[in-house]
Amino acid sequence: MQKQLIRILVSFVLLAAAATASAGNPLASWNDGPNKSAIMDFVAGVTDENSPGYVPVPERVATFDNDGTLWSEQPVYFQVLFALDRIRAMAPEHPEWKDTAPFSYVLAGDMKSVAASGMEGLGQIIAASHANLTGTEFAETVADWLATARHPATGRPYTEMVYQPMLELLDYLRANGFKTYIVSGGGIDFMRVFTEEVYGIPPEQVIGSQLDARFELRDGVPVIVKEDKLAFIDDKEGKPVGIYRHIGRRPLLAAGNSDGDQQMLEYATVPRGPEDSTPRLGLIVHHTDADREVAYDRESHIGKLDTALDAAPDRGWLVIDMKKDWKRVYATGSSQ
Amino acid sequence: MQKQLIRILVSFVLLAAAATASAGNPLASWNDGPNKSAIMDFVAGVTDENSPGYVPVPERVATFDNDGTLWSEQPVYFQVLFALDRIRAMAPEHPEWKDTAPFSYVLAGDMKSVAASGMEGLGQIIAASHANLTGTEFAETVADWLATARHPATGRPYTEMVYQPMLELLDYLRANGFKTYIVSGGGIDFMRVFTEEVYGIPPEQVIGSQLDARFELRDGVPVIVKEDKLAFIDDKEGKPVGIYRHIGRRPLLAAGNSDGDQQMLEYATVPRGPEDSTPRLGLIVHHTDADREVAYDRESHIGKLDTALDAAPDRGWLVIDMKKDWKRVYATGSSQ
Repeated sequence: MQKQLIRILVSFVLLAAAATASAGNPLASWNDGPNKSAIMDFVAGVTDENSPGYVPVPERVATFDNDGTLWSEQPVYFQVLFALDRIRAMAPEHPEWKDTAPFSYVLAGDMKSVAASGMEGLGQIIAASHANLTGTEFAETVADWLATARHPATGRPYTEMVYQPMLELLDYLRANGFKTYIVSGGGIDFMRVFTEEVYGIPPEQVIGSQLDARFELRDGVPVIVKEDKLAFIDDKEGKPVGIYRHIGRRPLLAAGNSDGDQQMLEYATVPRGPEDSTPRLGLIVHHTDADREVAYDRESHIGKLDTALDAAPDRGWLVIDMKKDWKRVYATGSSQ
Repeated sequence: MQKQLIRILVSFVLLAAAATASAGNPLASWNDGPNKSAIMDFVAGVTDENSPGYVPVPERVATFDNDGTLWSEQPVYFQVLFALDRIRAMAPEHPEWKDTAPFSYVLAGDMKSVAASGMEGLGQIIAASHANLTGTEFAETVADWLATARHPATGRPYTEMVYQPMLELLDYLRANGFKTYIVSGGGIDFMRVFTEEVYGIPPEQVIGSQLDARFELRDGVPVIVKEDKLAFIDDKEGKPVGIYRHIGRRPLLAAGNSDGDQQMLEYATVPRGPEDSTPRLGLIVHHTDADREVAYDRESHIGKLDTALDAAPDRGWLVIDMKKDWKRVYATGSSQ
């Protein structure tokens, strides 16, 4: 025991030393300014036992949208690009798709008609590319795609299009006792394939939209089968419901980038009543940087930010200006 | 920093000392025998880095049924008793219930007619007692009930009818790096009120059946409202699906006590294929002790244990004999 205890203590001292080192500049890719200060003041307040706003560790819950908040989402959600690639890859086994909309549009590269096929068409594409697979088969398919696919504009792997300042924010919050969650309109099973490696967020802390699923013993092996009916949409009013279902606690901090995140930010930050003085923080990532990423907000079809941007001043939400607040956008690459 | 580090190190040494002390006899209320040995051998195997069956900490997931596995469930699930008590408490505001079945049966104490009203009647009772409340209001109602209600046979608070040997098993697993979850057919919101205090299981590690819910700003305050439509039944085939949804990992250990847990035990323990040699453990709590609790299995309406008991030998599941394997049943009280 003595030996083991010493070994544990030594690793603990090393860990503490590492934490101290990064504590010197935990948000290195953020420019100094009111937004960075507000984030650090908030964290200092909830973690200081002598502060009136102190919050115990188990209640330090932080929820993050994914598309447009932790990684890019233009020209269209990356999961849609996965679905389209998968339709193309499956086409040889489906000769009938050549003459069947919306699959024929995908195979002809006619994205205008794909878009015009609306929710029904997209539903068929998602079902064909995501359902009737076991959970394990689907995860392998996503992993293969992430390893080989490249973004049409940047030529990079999608998992390299994550925002370095947000990675630092996640690390900083975890170093201060926060449990970090993803709460995204994207598919829960799609995200879980990469969130642990890329964001340090384990599968049990990922909340997302989901298809129905069933359990069966297939040739004696227990499997979960993804079905083609949508069971839950984790967007807008769905986000607080997803948080309530999965976590059962109200977040102290929520971060998003579009109107789809507005209800989550309200759930996290609006006081429960006049006596509720718990400090809470809402963040909106505002895509202002046309040089290093894409500039868009009120008029965008993807990641539309309009009513939430209007609500931000009254709600006290920080609007992160990617161009002004961030020293770099992506973790790697030259023009960051 | 120096001072804080020393304080942290001191608490860590104290914690390590406490862990060592309890490590001497972590399952103190379990009689020595093949079941206790099998549990300890399993834990030793998955935690020993030099063992071929070593499993890294993040994959150490253990799932426990609640009713009949962690606390008693006779003469009927405690949540049903809560619902009946709540109907009685709400009756003054609902004079029409005197003449409306199934509420009239509840108020007359006619449990036979309540039972005869079937799923439809029970559904109405659950809806009236559980729905159209905010999450916060419902949690307060449950907390008040748990604080004052007493079990009809034992006269005890329900939260004192938890099994001491299972509390020790939960602690023992956590001390060995396991994340412990509840996966119950009971209501997720009902359980979350007491699982942290009673079992050391936080709300985010509770999976259960659930009503639909919606988010709204009520007089400017963000609330979740419980609706009267059942959204998910976390029983039988639903348990592996609930685990897949919430955790996204397959458990290494699963414990239950009825046929409703059979699919969860299969999901946890049946190898994924001939090459899967990860050690896994299934436990069935068998209610054999008429003196200290209630003896029941194949013929019981509540917690029926029949097909899972038949499957246990082939599956290698441990059947815990409460009478033989446990030194005491409850944590407190005389006739343990």
